[in-house]
Amino acid sequence: MPNSFGKIFNITTWGESHGTGIGVVIDGCPPNLLISVEEIQAELDRRRPGQSDIVTQRKETDKVEIISGLYEGRTTGTPIAMMVANADQRSSAYDEIAEKFRPSHADYTYENKFGLRDPRGGGRSSARETVGRVAAGAIAKKLLTISGAIEIRAYLTQVHDITMPLLERFPTLSEVESNPVRCPDPETAERMIERIKAVRAEGDSVGGVIECRIRGLHAGLGEPVFDRLEADLAKAMLSLPATKGFEVGSGFSGTTMKGSDHNDPFIMKNGKVRTTSNFSGGVQGGISNGEEIVFRTAFKPTATISQSQKTVTVKGEETELAAKGRHDPCVVPRAVPIVEAMAALVIVDHWMRHAAQNRSFKL
Amino acid sequence: MPNSFGKIFNITTWGESHGTGIGVVIDGCPPNLLISVEEIQAELDRRRPGQSDIVTQRKETDKVEIISGLYEGRTTGTPIAMMVANADQRSSAYDEIAEKFRPSHADYTYENKFGLRDPRGGGRSSARETVGRVAAGAIAKKLLTISGAIEIRAYLTQVHDITMPLLERFPTLSEVESNPVRCPDPETAERMIERIKAVRAEGDSVGGVIECRIRGLHAGLGEPVFDRLEADLAKAMLSLPATKGFEVGSGFSGTTMKGSDHNDPFIMKNGKVRTTSNFSGGVQGGISNGEEIVFRTAFKPTATISQSQKTVTVKGEETELAAKGRHDPCVVPRAVPIVEAMAALVIVDHWMRHAAQNRSFKL
Amino acid sequence: MPNSFGKIFNITTWGESHGTGIGVVIDGCPPNLLISVEEIQAELDRRRPGQSDIVTQRKETDKVEIISGLYEGRTTGTPIAMMVANADQRSSAYDEIAEKFRPSHADYTYENKFGLRDPRGGGRSSARETVGRVAAGAIAKKLLTISGAIEIRAYLTQVHDITMPLLERFPTLSEVESNPVRCPDPETAERMIERIKAVRAEGDSVGGVIECRIRGLHAGLGEPVFDRLEADLAKAMLSLPATKGFEVGSGFSGTTMKGSDHNDPFIMKNGKVRTTSNFSGGVQGGISNGEEIVFRTAFKPTATISQSQKTVTVKGEETELAAKGRHDPCVVPRAVPIVEAMAALVIVDHWMRHAAQNRSFKL
Amino acid sequence: MPNSFGKIFNITTWGESHGTGIGVVIDGCPPNLLISVEEIQAELDRRRPGQSDIVTQRKETDKVEIISGLYEGRTTGTPIAMMVANADQRSSAYDEIAEKFRPSHADYTYENKFGLRDPRGGGRSSARETVGRVAAGAIAKKLLTISGAIEIRAYLTQVHDITMPLLERFPTLSEVESNPVRCPDPETAERMIERIKAVRAEGDSVGGVIECRIRGLHAGLGEPVFDRLEADLAKAMLSLPATKGFEVGSGFSGTTMKGSDHNDPFIMKNGKVRTTSNFSGGVQGGISNGEEIVFRTAFKPTATISQSQKTVTVKGEETELAAKGRHDPCVVPRAVPIVEAMAALVIVDHWMRHAAQNRSFKL
Repeated sequence: MPNSFGKIFNITTWGESHGTGIGVVIDGCPPNLLISVEEIQAELDRRRPGQSDIVTQRKETDKVEIISGLYEGRTTGTPIAMMVANADQRSSAYDEIAEKFRPSHADYTYENKFGLRDPRGGGRSSARETVGRVAAGAIAKKLLTISGAIEIRAYLTQVHDITMPLLERFPTLSEVESNPVRCPDPETAERMIERIKAVRAEGDSVGGVIECRIRGLHAGLGEPVFDRLEADLAKAMLSLPATKGFEVGSGFSGTTMKGSDHNDPFIMKNGKVRTTSNFSGGVQGGISNGEEIVFRTAFKPTATISQSQKTVTVKGEETELAAKGRHDPCVVPRAVPIVEAMAALVIVDHWMRHAAQNRSFKL
Repeated sequence: MPNSFGKIFNITTWGESHGTGIGVVIDGCPPNLLISVEEIQAELDRRRPGQSDIVTQRKETDKVEIISGLYEGRTTGTPIAMMVANADQRSSAYDEIAEKFRPSHADYTYENKFGLRDPRGGGRSSARETVGRVAAGAIAKKLLTISGAIEIRAYLTQVHDITMPLLERFPTLSEVESNPVRCPDPETAERMIERIKAVRAEGDSVGGVIECRIRGLHAGLGEPVFDRLEADLAKAMLSLPATKGFEVGSGFSGTTMKGSDHNDPFIMKNGKVRTTSNFSGGVQGGISNGEEIVFRTAFKPTATISQSQKTVTVKGEETELAAKGRHDPCVVPRAVPIVEAMAALVIVDHWMRHAAQNRSFKL
Repeated sequence: MPNSFGKIFNITTWGESHGTGIGVVIDGCPPNLLISVEEIQAELDRRRPGQSDIVTQRKETDKVEIISGLYEGRTTGTPIAMMVANADQRSSAYDEIAEKFRPSHADYTYENKFGLRDPRGGGRSSARETVGRVAAGAIAKKLLTISGAIEIRAYLTQVHDITMPLLERFPTLSEVESNPVRCPDPETAERMIERIKAVRAEGDSVGGVIECRIRGLHAGLGEPVFDRLEADLAKAMLSLPATKGFEVGSGFSGTTMKGSDHNDPFIMKNGKVRTTSNFSGGVQGGISNGEEIVFRTAFKPTATISQSQKTVTVKGEETELAAKGRHDPCVVPRAVPIVEAMAALVIVDHWMRHAAQNRSFKL
Repeated sequence: MPNSFGKIFNITTWGESHGTGIGVVIDGCPPNLLISVEEIQAELDRRRPGQSDIVTQRKETDKVEIISGLYEGRTTGTPIAMMVANADQRSSAYDEIAEKFRPSHADYTYENKFGLRDPRGGGRSSARETVGRVAAGAIAKKLLTISGAIEIRAYLTQVHDITMPLLERFPTLSEVESNPVRCPDPETAERMIERIKAVRAEGDSVGGVIECRIRGLHAGLGEPVFDRLEADLAKAMLSLPATKGFEVGSGFSGTTMKGSDHNDPFIMKNGKVRTTSNFSGGVQGGISNGEEIVFRTAFKPTATISQSQKTVTVKGEETELAAKGRHDPCVVPRAVPIVEAMAALVIVDHWMRHAAQNRSFKL
């Protein structure tokens, strides 16, 4: 089931960029959760194009409809189907995709794998597929909010070679949302915006890094051996379009440390086992240890650029291609709510798995 | 099924470090594969402790036994159970683990999650669990060898802050195996060995980075949307003990490039669609594009060190702990065959999934 | 994933009887299958109410829409979402369900399990859920038709205590569809129709038995040990509303035979291994043997009847209930296309699983 | 994963009849369950050959060894591997199986599916595979015992054409175990034994029916839509060797009733919603309703008989075959603990799934 994610809180996304619509089914959602279409819409609005002048100006209203699984405002425990109709179906703007493989896109691999593909707007390979993830993630987030003070916060720490100073504290949502690049450091945000505008002027694109933190999570989530919490987070992040890397806690830079510096010493604090540092990133042996979960995801520069590039046609002739129309010079800011959604889906799934194994029976 | 990996070629590992034995069951292996116990043993010997003077000198002979699923040297299509008896069961050497949580180990999280744990040698959280992965990986590798010239090669590119120069070509197995750190650059290997010896003398430890390449793989493996090839590789790698990061192709450094440089131009070569660069790392839209798959995994410094560290007891008292006995100052060289095994498992599983969807029916 | 079925050709159904609509997502469908909305509609029309004067006269046009996964008439290998809007949403007719548990329905168990339920028309527990199964089954059937001369034919052999004489040959579709009870024996069909009319006049209901045969299937489908072909067929059938029993081949009556009579002798016929009898029902050791697959499913009398029955209210008060409006005195004829759909889903899934394990690699 | 069963409490069995051994891995077992090897052995002793003079006299001591997953007598939440060594490996007695396909066995279908098979004692298709199920079932049973007064009791109601009078009450274990056919009605048991002896004298075999009841189970277990409790029980039963049918509650005979008689009226009893009859068999809409779960499984006559039968060789020549050595003229009595084991596995898995969805979050 390549279009499904999660073992107990399971989602299946479906839909193409320029088909009738795009959607998701959640199977396994707990019953009795009070959730409104507005709460889901709010998350979708964060990923929508056209939010600021540095992202694509395509008009996608992306109004979500809940088709099943709710009754009188509450989840019933049955599948929750949600759908967003595709308003912007102007296929003509994308005709060239049918003829030429866009470099570093999925055109060639889909065609090769399946023998055919829906070329309209990239079809299934379009980042528009993440609409369903964000809608499902909104419900997962609500579950975590209700179960305690569990908060998930993602934000940009890097655009191209511009990096944010180390952030000690957990940023507020309004800090993140205060600027269009979703970087909680205003000064860095300003420089990021300038850079994005500059590359757009060149008809080029840039990538960046999103950091995500989860706080309030109790110890014990995550499974030995294969379904480690960080392994499932890594899979979740690498399943997002344009991602090239994942790291948790100290990550790649931790490889340059010695064990005596990298190990997180245990202490007692308010009667609880805590660590004085957090190079582990909140997971040890694949299981949350009660500290903040911290991970980062690398996004490559957007593949779609206005500059002319070498490529080949579906018939195997060498040619050139330059994207027309409106494109994001940097998709990373819009990926922030998607990262949060995927993180929420992983946490809720592991929460339920943990409960199943450890709280079903009184032993 | 937290101890299972793979959707069609599925493995389940079991066993604790100091229990009766450790093993694996493969469910879904194709029938009629000729495989000998010696071929599996050869891979296990590569991960075994005591191979050189820079790794732990624990004597683990790790002789594998095939218990089921083969008949007259061939796989029968039924479950292949393999087991390695635990020779080294001297629990006394590890008594302290039962009393004190080792920093940055899984002692605390297991205890918290399950309410109890097998402390002998770390129990299930021991890296000894990977024995089963390597045994299963040997069979997956054989399948790939037989199906063509598919080769998987992992090697160290970094130990602590010592990094190898960029390697253009696919290294040979003998280049990798020519030194105990499994770095195909002899001069760098020498410096890595010196560094490992130095930190061992300090009672400390270091980590590093393993790069892995897969060549000969045809285009079309990997699934949109969640089960992208790189997503499953990321999960596979982050499921290994001591890993903190994963990147494919350009990875984190790709975030500092512009799209015009990062996009891999398509050309025609010998009648095939190829790319002139490989920042994608062999995957586009989650699917292999016929170029080399290239990914890297970050390993933190070994958590077990001889220096004294602050920690707490299971009763919640602050204390100190210094590991006794024989420990690896750097586990990364021994992780090379494990990385290869996990990569082989991912590829074989996707190979079979691809065949199921795309070659079952003649359409 | 309680609302999903199939390991490789996987479907997820969603929707409630009186919500916005009801639908299905197919994940894993092979690409390049030519399929039209009319072919799917044709199967849905066979399960639709109001087809004859012996079934419920509710008007449900049940027009299916394909929302994703097709491009220019062909499947693309991506998820196929299909939806049928709910035209008949007159909730008032069903208000009583919200207050009183209908005997032998799912009202009480849903309420108990989830703490709430959508009572409108039975919500998710309505047999209307099978719309999605039939739509998906139409695609599975098409795959089987294309892959050879594989035919699936279900028909009634029993209504109440009226049974059909043993049918030696595989009936044609037109024989089955020639009468509203879908019994290929015209004389028996006549008596069944009379019986159904009689019980309807009494405000009562009856059940029956559906036999299903699959011919043209090659040997080798089905898995040892748990996923035997008959085990998955049994699960598929018992997952249908109102089913109480399943048997394959000789079934329950085979228990009164001796082994010497029951064993199916092997012979050679046209160079193929065949059996002279088929008490096995086409499966041996869980795997198809190339003979006809034959199984039967028992359906209980419809729970909804016009006669007054004892029951309790949601508040725990004893009361009486008599169904109002239009109801099926016998749902079994309408279940025929649903049985065929589920059988097709099982066969296609096992077909793909078999190919994955046995044809992926050349060994 | 054809050799796996259960979504959360998952077992994988492995091993061949005459290989090194036969075993099972349980993945997902709750931690902290106190269980002894003796408790598991006790269940295995019930399925062992040679228990009485009416079953096969093969000597299989079947001593189980727990290899992993327990520490100081308690489950740790990690995989529990158990193994029974194969003592009786006299392959010579079975050489003929390699040359001739036994009628109504799996020899031909395995050979056809996989291209080869382990013929020694039937290899993987031997009923000896159920050893692992019974060992795992013993642990599942213990979980159910501890969680309340949940009891699972299976027993024979039919051998050949000899049937037991309807049993109103839940029989005791000692009633069932008081005779070698495991029929709680002593007079019927006597006749069953005579019949089995008679067919054995003829070199023939007989089948029968096992009824299984589960009492003490609360309402709410089982999932709409596909994973209905009865659907999973049906799959579990049809996954057992030699089974041809399954029915729950009124089953096939319920098809001859009218709805007004078949519906189970709800009443209030001691403040609980109960039914006055139980034609539903304890499940409504796929979910337990708090009444006794009652189901029956049909077992065909043993395929192995001493009489000469027509068959073909692996080379496609017609021949005859008569089984030599010790065989069960009726395997049904030995299947009683296996039915109970499978039922326990289904219940525990659904118990944990129910808890995961409905008790993980406080809503």
